[in-house]
Amino acid sequence: MRNDGRNNNQTRPIAITTHYNKHAEGSVFIEVGETKVICTATVEERVPPFMKGQGKGWVTAEYSMLPRATQVRNQRESAKGKLGGRTMEIQRLIGRALRSVISLEALGERSITLDCDVIQADGGTRTTSITGAFIAMAFAIDKLAKDRNLKTYPIRDFLGAVSVGVVNGQTSLDLNYEEDSKAKVDMNVVMTGDGKFVEVQGTGEDSPFSRAELDELLALAEVGIKDIILAQEEALGPEICARIRRIPHAAATRS
Amino acid sequence: MRNDGRNNNQTRPIAITTHYNKHAEGSVFIEVGETKVICTATVEERVPPFMKGQGKGWVTAEYSMLPRATQVRNQRESAKGKLGGRTMEIQRLIGRALRSVISLEALGERSITLDCDVIQADGGTRTTSITGAFIAMAFAIDKLAKDRNLKTYPIRDFLGAVSVGVVNGQTSLDLNYEEDSKAKVDMNVVMTGDGKFVEVQGTGEDSPFSRAELDELLALAEVGIKDIILAQEEALGPEICARIRRIPHAAATRS
Amino acid sequence: MRNDGRNNNQTRPIAITTHYNKHAEGSVFIEVGETKVICTATVEERVPPFMKGQGKGWVTAEYSMLPRATQVRNQRESAKGKLGGRTMEIQRLIGRALRSVISLEALGERSITLDCDVIQADGGTRTTSITGAFIAMAFAIDKLAKDRNLKTYPIRDFLGAVSVGVVNGQTSLDLNYEEDSKAKVDMNVVMTGDGKFVEVQGTGEDSPFSRAELDELLALAEVGIKDIILAQEEALGPEICARIRRIPHAAATRS
Amino acid sequence: MRNDGRNNNQTRPIAITTHYNKHAEGSVFIEVGETKVICTATVEERVPPFMKGQGKGWVTAEYSMLPRATQVRNQRESAKGKLGGRTMEIQRLIGRALRSVISLEALGERSITLDCDVIQADGGTRTTSITGAFIAMAFAIDKLAKDRNLKTYPIRDFLGAVSVGVVNGQTSLDLNYEEDSKAKVDMNVVMTGDGKFVEVQGTGEDSPFSRAELDELLALAEVGIKDIILAQEEALGPEICARIRRIPHAAATRS
Amino acid sequence: MRNDGRNNNQTRPIAITTHYNKHAEGSVFIEVGETKVICTATVEERVPPFMKGQGKGWVTAEYSMLPRATQVRNQRESAKGKLGGRTMEIQRLIGRALRSVISLEALGERSITLDCDVIQADGGTRTTSITGAFIAMAFAIDKLAKDRNLKTYPIRDFLGAVSVGVVNGQTSLDLNYEEDSKAKVDMNVVMTGDGKFVEVQGTGEDSPFSRAELDELLALAEVGIKDIILAQEEALGPEICARIRRIPHAAATRS
Amino acid sequence: MRNDGRNNNQTRPIAITTHYNKHAEGSVFIEVGETKVICTATVEERVPPFMKGQGKGWVTAEYSMLPRATQVRNQRESAKGKLGGRTMEIQRLIGRALRSVISLEALGERSITLDCDVIQADGGTRTTSITGAFIAMAFAIDKLAKDRNLKTYPIRDFLGAVSVGVVNGQTSLDLNYEEDSKAKVDMNVVMTGDGKFVEVQGTGEDSPFSRAELDELLALAEVGIKDIILAQEEALGPEICARIRRIPHAAATRS
Repeated sequence: MRNDGRNNNQTRPIAITTHYNKHAEGSVFIEVGETKVICTATVEERVPPFMKGQGKGWVTAEYSMLPRATQVRNQRESAKGKLGGRTMEIQRLIGRALRSVISLEALGERSITLDCDVIQADGGTRTTSITGAFIAMAFAIDKLAKDRNLKTYPIRDFLGAVSVGVVNGQTSLDLNYEEDSKAKVDMNVVMTGDGKFVEVQGTGEDSPFSRAELDELLALAEVGIKDIILAQEEALGPEICARIRRIPHAAATRS
Repeated sequence: MRNDGRNNNQTRPIAITTHYNKHAEGSVFIEVGETKVICTATVEERVPPFMKGQGKGWVTAEYSMLPRATQVRNQRESAKGKLGGRTMEIQRLIGRALRSVISLEALGERSITLDCDVIQADGGTRTTSITGAFIAMAFAIDKLAKDRNLKTYPIRDFLGAVSVGVVNGQTSLDLNYEEDSKAKVDMNVVMTGDGKFVEVQGTGEDSPFSRAELDELLALAEVGIKDIILAQEEALGPEICARIRRIPHAAATRS
Repeated sequence: MRNDGRNNNQTRPIAITTHYNKHAEGSVFIEVGETKVICTATVEERVPPFMKGQGKGWVTAEYSMLPRATQVRNQRESAKGKLGGRTMEIQRLIGRALRSVISLEALGERSITLDCDVIQADGGTRTTSITGAFIAMAFAIDKLAKDRNLKTYPIRDFLGAVSVGVVNGQTSLDLNYEEDSKAKVDMNVVMTGDGKFVEVQGTGEDSPFSRAELDELLALAEVGIKDIILAQEEALGPEICARIRRIPHAAATRS
Repeated sequence: MRNDGRNNNQTRPIAITTHYNKHAEGSVFIEVGETKVICTATVEERVPPFMKGQGKGWVTAEYSMLPRATQVRNQRESAKGKLGGRTMEIQRLIGRALRSVISLEALGERSITLDCDVIQADGGTRTTSITGAFIAMAFAIDKLAKDRNLKTYPIRDFLGAVSVGVVNGQTSLDLNYEEDSKAKVDMNVVMTGDGKFVEVQGTGEDSPFSRAELDELLALAEVGIKDIILAQEEALGPEICARIRRIPHAAATRS
Repeated sequence: MRNDGRNNNQTRPIAITTHYNKHAEGSVFIEVGETKVICTATVEERVPPFMKGQGKGWVTAEYSMLPRATQVRNQRESAKGKLGGRTMEIQRLIGRALRSVISLEALGERSITLDCDVIQADGGTRTTSITGAFIAMAFAIDKLAKDRNLKTYPIRDFLGAVSVGVVNGQTSLDLNYEEDSKAKVDMNVVMTGDGKFVEVQGTGEDSPFSRAELDELLALAEVGIKDIILAQEEALGPEICARIRRIPHAAATRS
Repeated sequence: MRNDGRNNNQTRPIAITTHYNKHAEGSVFIEVGETKVICTATVEERVPPFMKGQGKGWVTAEYSMLPRATQVRNQRESAKGKLGGRTMEIQRLIGRALRSVISLEALGERSITLDCDVIQADGGTRTTSITGAFIAMAFAIDKLAKDRNLKTYPIRDFLGAVSVGVVNGQTSLDLNYEEDSKAKVDMNVVMTGDGKFVEVQGTGEDSPFSRAELDELLALAEVGIKDIILAQEEALGPEICARIRRIPHAAATRS
């Protein structure tokens, strides 16, 4: 039994408020348990210098935590005058993950910036950001595809993320903060709607892990991401789902 | 008639969600029209170096906008590597204003940091931040006064803020973004519960203003701040109101 | 009686050395009591990016203090690697104030940068900077108007600034450092030659102030600024005064 | 056949020059193919603030590339004034990986800093850095264990790293730069001497990958890391190997 | 004949206003031709961390130019967020030069900071800064020696600096800006009162120079520095001169 | 007798490994005693903004030390977020020195960046960098002259650098770290192949020096630079030497 009463293969409750921001081209407020993130998508008719003149678009992400998203107040990176390593690592991960399901050619020379701002943190902020950012991005691109009459629909598949880890000697799905802080192994997994891996980042700083543990963790992640993508489908609605041309999979079954 | 149907002496609707953040010692989510700010108060048992050893506390504030709080995305100050002049000016204002109603001696050698994060901006973000931060601070200090059994109650009075300006040749209360961007004169006023001024910042960059206009603007601000303090009283509840020992004033009457 | 023997409604002696710098298009060395500031105006045939292509000019200001302008040496902001909040606030104020009396259209696509460098500080450095910068700017623009044969004269009015405050329970004009450091209320006022307000910034951090006090302070500021503008007229000389087309007012009378 | 004639399961030639630097407590110059890295270990009798007073040591790493380590000159991060996201990500990875085989308690309140400076880059600079840094660290700790007569030997196991990826549709071991730049899937794997995983970081930005591909990549990595650890054993010599108390495994066999 | 009518072995007129700043422990306003620098000396009862506990003092310098000290406005280094290489080089030079004539032991654990702020630049700003800073420092140390009753007088000798160069094929003393900008060889020389060298910095970027030219330049510098030290003696007055225990040399004679 | 057995007029052994880096247009690994520097030359078909449109090229240098090049680890300037004064001073010196023997007109609108990275430091890192950078630059320019068929050969002469100083009361050539740290006078000299001076930088921070000492130091430097240029000739080979059209001088003779 876990500290919040869940089974090892259960995710926390997911709540998604769509169109949360009146200015952004796409936005959600996503809650996974007590972890809460605002994701907004901004569409701009220009690409960064290194992408210019290639007829392709770009998708990038920025990640930040409000100072009191955490139990102890963390100093603002704007006040420190620089981004920390953790922030950079996370926003590179989010951007890379989102690009994996987008056709940059179909997007045309435009850029989409996903801002993921963590309002309250309770474990899994990077995976919640990816999950929420995908929805915000999908709303923004869907609108763009209609407004600009894009020939090819730029979204190729759904994309969800979840954390897994070894806590108290047990492999567990979707760790909350308390679990995360005592996990021996910690892994973040990003997968597409058709069940392929986009990112696998496992680390056993406190204790190296065996191939058998790795296999168990990957299996749990697969279960969790199925649930997460179901929640994304519901948030985006049937029309956008249809345009992504994804064959909805059945809900994950578990013991 | 104003662009949103209000009379010149009317504030926008105010909504205050208390205890919005599970980690902070005090917190609110405040909405004034379409302007939305999360205010959290963090209590720490230490003071900045320049205050050490004086037996007094400190109250300070930080202010930030999410990148897409605005119509056009604004770059993060953490990415730029420094705080802009506007941000510094606003957070200095908020801190100064809040300190005016606090007895730093009664607080003891502790600091309270108010984080004001603008989720969505539609004019008046600095005054909304002050209004919201006062409530978050009051919750935090009230808890502190109980937990630490403070001899003197550190909060001396209520504190509210509002903007006024000259728009389309008319003095108007609580400007929204569209009004603000075409205002000839722009003034932010911060007042205490007993009707005294803490800050008056009026600027007529595009058009200097007369003493008569100044008087009209100050009168409007007084009306608005009475409404705002009523909303604060409701949010804080009768017990905390009683402890602040404030004699509640009647609602402002207007034509 | 004040610490330097002045009456409450008296400014300190004002001395203005014109054409102080051989390189700048306009320059003064201004002394208000023991506060000493070098103001230079630089004219450049370009505007900042956000102003391009509008056929309008721009006026901006920078403010700095020499490290030993103050009693205790203050660290250079160049060595710290960033501008402090106070500096930013002041230079934004100076720029805004100066723009209020300039027709940016008449200026054409040019920018004027006012550098205000405090050589010695004894209270009122920001108001002295505004007063001095106006003269440096006027010399530079007058020269420009002649050299470029500008159709409309870009200077619309004089501009002066002064501080007022409540010291030892008395409202006082033009505070020196010692007065400023014990003032309960501190207000900076910027006015035009025809007696209109450009900026009113009053703060009662240590003690909120009443409407009656505010009225007294504004009246004192008006008296002081009349004196200051007389000094400006003398420094600029009758020809430039005439071109600004200002009807000189009589000297302020006082009890 | 690969672009440099290797089989898919072959690493590039590994050359390790030990004691390369006369000042450092431990150092190597490691060459993996054309990738060349100087790794130095510095021992200091203090720990970072967040580790103080716990009776434990700390191991950290810094990573940098000379400007012309790459085909096109890259700007120095010291000249840019900040570390890039890639650098931060890599140095966090190196430090984390090294700590996984060290007993921080046995080390005592000391810190070891591993500097990995890439002299020439041809793919796999982060994995080569980990492999080389382990040797430099082992020399430094071994010396420390003797000099300070440490009760417990702080090194628990060997640690090697290698990259694997899918290039031209084939899973391949130890990618060089040309391969890396066209790889569809890219994975860095860090393992201990007893065959456990410390880090698994796989990314399929350009093309998500299946579970079958993931399994093949992990198997290749295991083969490569065995070779790498053999080279480490040879560089460290039988005495240190014995103190690490590792049972040497046989060389990897392959088809 | 030079562009300002001087002979090749003539310095520009030197004017020194002592006690220019009311706050600093020592200060001068020094004018060498049209080059004008404010030098202030600040005494603090502490030394930088690297000097602590050695019973010795420290002397350091900072150098800056006002933005419009130059013909074309130069951007503030505080606005750029960092000191340029030229500034750092100059302030290191000034500090090093001043320390050469001070007994740090006699000074005791105190630091003296010389701020050299160039008000107007017309060549030779670094040498003028050294010459002026010596006087400001001497006033500050003399006062300190009296106030603290120092056993040994910390000033060992006078110190002056001048530039020399090859302009229009001729070796010339004390270059002004126009000369400096077309000089083929440029040399700054710092010497003590007893005719020894403290710094010789010659550079022939545009044209290497022979030993014979070097000898001529050094001879010219010697002549100029004698004049400069005479001016310093006059500024400091006979009492301080006597305490420095320097035997005044006769004025340099020249053809 | 010196601490490493050399006579006062002897340089340390010089070893030059050419073409050390496979990517750079020119490169060497230079060892002068235990001081070791990698120098790479990068050719780019563009010039910095201030050189644009003049039909001339540019040569610049960057200098850095690996953290453990020194006995005690020095913090990376990339981690500090800015270049130190010493680094800036040195890289300005290297660039200036190299430009003195190059015809920027003959080079055409291209820039050459010399990166000097100190792998191990034992005194004389800046002079070793200049000596090595000249060779790397010569290889790069020679290749460029051939590839682009330049009309005029851009290299005008050889360029070498050495340090001299007064150690234990004796003038000495090519100081190692131990000597340098106790030298009373320290001088860096850069000379061309035909025996002219490019830079003379002498400093007597701890003890001013006489003209006689200066003369002795310059004579020693001349001897050392002859040796150094012989080593450069050998490294570059007869063909490039011939193109530089330098008449080789005989080896320096000494007592």
